[in-house]
Amino acid sequence: MKNIKFIIEYDGTEYCGWQIQPNGLSVQQVIEEALLKLTGEEIKIHGSGRTDSGVHAYGQAASFKTQSSIPAEVFSKALNHHLPWDISIIFSCEADKDFHARFSAKGKKYSYEIFNRDIRSPFYETRAFRVPGTLDINSMKRAAEHFYGTHDFRGFMAVKSQVSDTVRTITDISVEKNGDIIEINVSGNGFLYNMVRIIAGTLLECGLGRLAPSDIPNVIFSGKRDEAGPTLPARGLYLVNVFYS
Amino acid sequence: MKNIKFIIEYDGTEYCGWQIQPNGLSVQQVIEEALLKLTGEEIKIHGSGRTDSGVHAYGQAASFKTQSSIPAEVFSKALNHHLPWDISIIFSCEADKDFHARFSAKGKKYSYEIFNRDIRSPFYETRAFRVPGTLDINSMKRAAEHFYGTHDFRGFMAVKSQVSDTVRTITDISVEKNGDIIEINVSGNGFLYNMVRIIAGTLLECGLGRLAPSDIPNVIFSGKRDEAGPTLPARGLYLVNVFYS
Repeated sequence: MKNIKFIIEYDGTEYCGWQIQPNGLSVQQVIEEALLKLTGEEIKIHGSGRTDSGVHAYGQAASFKTQSSIPAEVFSKALNHHLPWDISIIFSCEADKDFHARFSAKGKKYSYEIFNRDIRSPFYETRAFRVPGTLDINSMKRAAEHFYGTHDFRGFMAVKSQVSDTVRTITDISVEKNGDIIEINVSGNGFLYNMVRIIAGTLLECGLGRLAPSDIPNVIFSGKRDEAGPTLPARGLYLVNVFYS
Repeated sequence: MKNIKFIIEYDGTEYCGWQIQPNGLSVQQVIEEALLKLTGEEIKIHGSGRTDSGVHAYGQAASFKTQSSIPAEVFSKALNHHLPWDISIIFSCEADKDFHARFSAKGKKYSYEIFNRDIRSPFYETRAFRVPGTLDINSMKRAAEHFYGTHDFRGFMAVKSQVSDTVRTITDISVEKNGDIIEINVSGNGFLYNMVRIIAGTLLECGLGRLAPSDIPNVIFSGKRDEAGPTLPARGLYLVNVFYS
């Protein structure tokens, strides 16, 4: 029995998210069906965590056990023949027998892409959130610095979410502008539900001049969802990387 | 009667090209149908030239005459409400009465995108041509320099094409690598049918070591289609800009 690790890219537009759902096609289901075709085994794969419908991934991690004789390193190419164009296994290897993509994860990196142009573009319609007008990038950068470190992020969590420990550590955060694209990169040891999309929405409020960078410590300290910015749409969010020791 | 100029972005994946065709949906047809909805007029628009099925545009130009009272500058936003996600009018203005997007054009800029990675990616599947393995970028850059200037490009034209004057001038050409993307930019006063895709294919032969940069002058001088490289697929080609005086 081999334990295999995958790194997966996907365009989440057409999926109900990573996790198998009763109503709707998930990325996990498509990969499990492809594994059945490739190996003849009914394999359950474990992702590093869920991604919502419309969220994309440059580096989702997953692991599964198999008795297949296919060498771990060629699993990626072999499986891609059975996968649709919008899902690609970009790396596969054999992992330690106790490696588990979710329980072994030490942290994650996400990016949120804002397309800052007055007129829509076919090239970003499903892959970024479009914001017209002028944004104050320096304000967004200064605001981002306040998120560094360990905070109680309960105000940056979807209201319906029920998690008791809402303290998380942001290990890296940056805001970069390249042409019409503003990329917000956030790394941390863990994230609450919708946390990155709410941080991005709060930084956007700063870019629009509705919040000042100096407001951020109080917004975080308040712990109130309605003090933070809006939850930006799923289509701008990318799971970039999952960290393991 | 106003003469209006459009700059148009489109993802060409789902279209049979720019020009109206009896079989298949073209970008031109979709825009003309949207103009009918917006203005009530049956308007014929003139593109700067055709693009093939699957070819994309960041800056196709088009012109048309209308009696509509809609101010020229707001035509773009008004029309975008009637256009699908993969076509966007990014700029509109009133042009001189004798301006014609095709006959007034002085030149064009194209780019060809190569995605240089062993494993396919959902994010480039329809928007670049994927080449695995290692490419010699410096060889591609040195080869590109030989295309500068005025040459008889009859070897860089689709065999079925029937054009008597095959002399064209390349005013700018560059090869740039950014991460996994190799971008070939070519500007010129005019292009033969498939010329950019054959130049890109010839530069790729140099990147693969099958041609040397020093071979290029003889390849051009021979005037033979089979001395040049292959015609790369449409999905990597972008019409970037149309030049007017």
